Amino acid sequence: MGLTVAEKILQAHLVEGELKKGEEIALRIDQTLTQDATGTMAYLEFEAIGIPRVKTELSVSYVDHNLVQSDFRNADDHRFLQSVARKFGLWFSPPGNGICHQVHLERFGIPGKTLLGSDSHTPTGGGLGMLAMGAGGLDVAMAMAGKPFYLIMPKIFGIRLTGRLQPWVAARDVLLEVLRQLTVKGGVGYIMEYFGPGVAELSVTDRATITNFGAELGATTSVFPSDENTRQFLVAQGREDQWQELKADEDAVYDRVIEIDMSTLEPMIACPSSPDNVVKVSEVAGKPVAQVLIGSCTNSSLRDLTAVARILEGRETSRDVSFEVNPGSRQALENLTAQGNLLPLLQAGARVHQSGCLGCIGMGQAPPTSAISLRTFSRNFPGRSGTQNDQVYLCSPEVAVASAITGVITDPRDLGDYPEVTLPEKYLPGDERIEAPWPENAEVEIIRGPNIAPFPDFTDLPETWKGRVMLKVGDNITTDHIMPAGAKILPLRSNIPAISEYVFHAVDPDFATNMKQAAEQGVAGMIVGGDNYGQGSSREHAALAPRYLGVQVKLVKSFARIHKANLINFGIVPLCFANSEDYDLVEQGAEVVIPGIREALASGQDSLTVEVNGKPVAATIDLSPRHREILVAGGLLNWARGA
Amino acid sequence: MGLTVAEKILQAHLVEGELKKGEEIALRIDQTLTQDATGTMAYLEFEAIGIPRVKTELSVSYVDHNLVQSDFRNADDHRFLQSVARKFGLWFSPPGNGICHQVHLERFGIPGKTLLGSDSHTPTGGGLGMLAMGAGGLDVAMAMAGKPFYLIMPKIFGIRLTGRLQPWVAARDVLLEVLRQLTVKGGVGYIMEYFGPGVAELSVTDRATITNFGAELGATTSVFPSDENTRQFLVAQGREDQWQELKADEDAVYDRVIEIDMSTLEPMIACPSSPDNVVKVSEVAGKPVAQVLIGSCTNSSLRDLTAVARILEGRETSRDVSFEVNPGSRQALENLTAQGNLLPLLQAGARVHQSGCLGCIGMGQAPPTSAISLRTFSRNFPGRSGTQNDQVYLCSPEVAVASAITGVITDPRDLGDYPEVTLPEKYLPGDERIEAPWPENAEVEIIRGPNIAPFPDFTDLPETWKGRVMLKVGDNITTDHIMPAGAKILPLRSNIPAISEYVFHAVDPDFATNMKQAAEQGVAGMIVGGDNYGQGSSREHAALAPRYLGVQVKLVKSFARIHKANLINFGIVPLCFANSEDYDLVEQGAEVVIPGIREALASGQDSLTVEVNGKPVAATIDLSPRHREILVAGGLLNWARGA
Repeated sequence: MGLTVAEKILQAHLVEGELKKGEEIALRIDQTLTQDATGTMAYLEFEAIGIPRVKTELSVSYVDHNLVQSDFRNADDHRFLQSVARKFGLWFSPPGNGICHQVHLERFGIPGKTLLGSDSHTPTGGGLGMLAMGAGGLDVAMAMAGKPFYLIMPKIFGIRLTGRLQPWVAARDVLLEVLRQLTVKGGVGYIMEYFGPGVAELSVTDRATITNFGAELGATTSVFPSDENTRQFLVAQGREDQWQELKADEDAVYDRVIEIDMSTLEPMIACPSSPDNVVKVSEVAGKPVAQVLIGSCTNSSLRDLTAVARILEGRETSRDVSFEVNPGSRQALENLTAQGNLLPLLQAGARVHQSGCLGCIGMGQAPPTSAISLRTFSRNFPGRSGTQNDQVYLCSPEVAVASAITGVITDPRDLGDYPEVTLPEKYLPGDERIEAPWPENAEVEIIRGPNIAPFPDFTDLPETWKGRVMLKVGDNITTDHIMPAGAKILPLRSNIPAISEYVFHAVDPDFATNMKQAAEQGVAGMIVGGDNYGQGSSREHAALAPRYLGVQVKLVKSFARIHKANLINFGIVPLCFANSEDYDLVEQGAEVVIPGIREALASGQDSLTVEVNGKPVAATIDLSPRHREILVAGGLLNWARGA
Repeated sequence: MGLTVAEKILQAHLVEGELKKGEEIALRIDQTLTQDATGTMAYLEFEAIGIPRVKTELSVSYVDHNLVQSDFRNADDHRFLQSVARKFGLWFSPPGNGICHQVHLERFGIPGKTLLGSDSHTPTGGGLGMLAMGAGGLDVAMAMAGKPFYLIMPKIFGIRLTGRLQPWVAARDVLLEVLRQLTVKGGVGYIMEYFGPGVAELSVTDRATITNFGAELGATTSVFPSDENTRQFLVAQGREDQWQELKADEDAVYDRVIEIDMSTLEPMIACPSSPDNVVKVSEVAGKPVAQVLIGSCTNSSLRDLTAVARILEGRETSRDVSFEVNPGSRQALENLTAQGNLLPLLQAGARVHQSGCLGCIGMGQAPPTSAISLRTFSRNFPGRSGTQNDQVYLCSPEVAVASAITGVITDPRDLGDYPEVTLPEKYLPGDERIEAPWPENAEVEIIRGPNIAPFPDFTDLPETWKGRVMLKVGDNITTDHIMPAGAKILPLRSNIPAISEYVFHAVDPDFATNMKQAAEQGVAGMIVGGDNYGQGSSREHAALAPRYLGVQVKLVKSFARIHKANLINFGIVPLCFANSEDYDLVEQGAEVVIPGIREALASGQDSLTVEVNGKPVAATIDLSPRHREILVAGGLLNWARGA
């Protein structure tokens, strides 16, 4: 039987298990990446493992999230990360150098390699034909230590592309259409693999937009073949020697297939406040816009910025709009400047920022009260912008810039002819600031600011668990709900006691206080949730900080993949309702006993009984033998130390 | 008797009083400017005055301080300011367009005009031959309402410039030398006026650096003649028609004169944590540097950025340094880009930010713990950077970039030949985003976010004042000590109840709580201070917020000018010790009675007795009749409404 691209890469990296859908496999990881918001903790974990140097082919530590330095914390973290990179043999990409995924695509990604990143948009590398997956920082730390990455063998979701995008319709619209059809849960348990004649019509940049934004489907990752377009991209990057062809066999089998005829697509837009709340732009055209942001790892490549600049040539943006551009990388900004395309942006009124994530992670750029913000970002979860009750729409650079010009949401086809967008044959590398690994014997002192707290210790799982339902939430709870980001909270990422004060802060401002009061009474915590619990960002702090507060069990209708893995890593038992309707029976504040929980996990049971105020509720356990060992030990670090 | 430049402008604008040193005069104000951190309150005050449209020749509302939008507050303030500008007939310069002083110099400043700005660096306009003064927002609001600006006629301090700056020595070094000689109190009561053959050796940009940084002398303002260099500057700006010559009469008399032979100056640097802590760069060379910031209204003009770019051509900055560039204006950034000088900055590793104040006001860019930050800014007061115990040095762009290259504090003359710095004959105007006043009959709704609180009401002065010394502080207390700025507090500038929580926060974190508890007991507050109390920024919040908390009297050794004026505007009685040594007699917590304070002010007494724990302490009253009326009324707005 033929193999898909994903299966070929999986096969080539398999170190444990078999490629049977639904069974746990272990993969060799060639490359890792971290960003600063997850990286400080990942390297504290790597230190705790106790290995002197990373064992991957290549590991890169990026600083792209916490670029606004309101006090010493972020600047201290940057220096910590730089010194750690020097000590442990990593590449280091400093603040202002660009967004990890964009820079990795440009300078490091190689077709056919595995990449594990402590950021949920790591699938960006799939645009180059990599198997690039997001994971928690601890998983990345383990990979840097040479350990394999464990996952449940996903199914393969084939997306057959045909036709060619019309002018003003963008790669973004392909994935908006997929999200419209499949929703933010549609990719759970799958790798999304693109094939068909339409693939050749998309540049690597376009493909990277699609695989990046594909994270919002809940998929394990997304991947494109590596073909002549891929080779051309690597030629422009001066890395032609790293190209290899990679395509699915003619007789490859997909577990599910949909077809997208790109020639039929129109400009689309995701309305507040979920990436799958997708309509045609024409359906919401005319609404006044206060802010337009071009940027993020989804849409701020040189191609995107050049297109925006060409569209703006001879035009101005509306005075009622704050028009802002966050270049994805130093390379993108340097080439844009060298090609003479920065000036039209400035003359059209852009606020051009340093390269980095910025507003996409709520690090500045919060929109005004009750006003529409159009963003070429990947997420519009409520409040993620930094403004409560925000009105954030997600769209292509073309829709964004058209709306910035008119001041209202605008179908870009109204602007007339699409301009000519020319990219250099060979890019300025823009990698002047990327620091190569230091030699193994270099003397490096790790610079540790006062906000960098050591990794906390956790106990193992008791025989019988007793606790209380400390919070009950609904469907599609994101990791932004659980552990908010933003300019106030992100600087605390390297300090678990401090950041834990903000767990569920927007959902229940008293949550941390209640947990601490319960802990003083010896009461542990359980969270009850609905479907797709823990979607969104890969941040392991959404497991680590609640665990620090005393959350040990979560009982929900269904989990998002990365978050479930993070729960296991930090010793929070992930249980699902055997019957979804039982969700209604469990109230916040209920007293809970789970007799024999340790034995149930250790012995491989696939269900157990949760006693809620004395009444039995059936729960299922969907965990691999390794997961069970980790949970019994109280978390992955305990397990790895004991193993 | 001949007149100086300053006296000529004063004479031409005098509407009350005589030009006798030490007596109160009133001036017609031609132009005003505000920035957002002081402007929201200034326009709330303008609204409270109740005039339908500004009565100046030109008033501009700039947004340059609060550019990091961590939540809705700053973005809401930007929209409020834009709508206010439209409503009341102002020009509006939106966020990202540049620093008020730089943009005003480029696009609006006119030799011979008076300019009143709600920012202490308004004297930048003195580089163009304007009489440009900083004042509290309420003073600016009154000026916009067509009222004259009152001040005590200053003495004239002549600074005679001779010689010519050596290569690598900059305008910045001229003022560093003046600060070294005169200290941060040296200009109190003076206008600093530059004359002599050296003036012709300085461009308008250089002169603006000097008059801007001259704010740190405590002077009323600083001024240069308007000459051929001034004309050339206006030609490059396309504003030649606004030029007029302006020079001191041959027989002009200065109250005091010093001479600076510029040819003897070396590169200088102000060490932590005061702008007058000046040494030669060679005396501190070799210290490791973690951060270098080029920017601020003092040194981020096109000339400065071009020089930095040319110096960096073919060089890289140290990987141990975060090298950051904040262009002063959109014009500077556009011309830099058009001339091909942005790319070398990027390739040398710069993080290039949008145009604005940013780190200079602690809005991002806080340095790491215990690390040296070199800045081309004007202030290095402790903690102003956002990092407590910061190590901030102030220097020229040349010293800054040389140190960025080597990673240690470096005398730039070590770099060899100074590069050729060519500026365009005619600048791209870069004013695409500046919005002209709307017509008088335009319908405008003011957009008011939920954080924009109305101006508070204050009571008039009692016959006998009773209260308590709520805080005792030392010499050179800055308005940053009294009302801190930074990314956390600046967004509260339009909300007095909220921002008052942070009064004296770094000095005594319990101050606001103690004041509120005292207020509940009916106890009013007095602050005791040393010399030069209230130096630094012009922020009226440093008077308004303490008054809101219940501070009604300040008793100090001496006051800085703008702060004293702000105290009067908000009804806080400024008293000075008749005998400085009595400072030691007054302890924090002492109970204070001032019998007949109202009558003493109203009747024109120049002294009164303060009873401290029952013991008499003699205090002086140095106030004009108008000041006395204002204080009796409880503040300027009360007075203006009653008048």
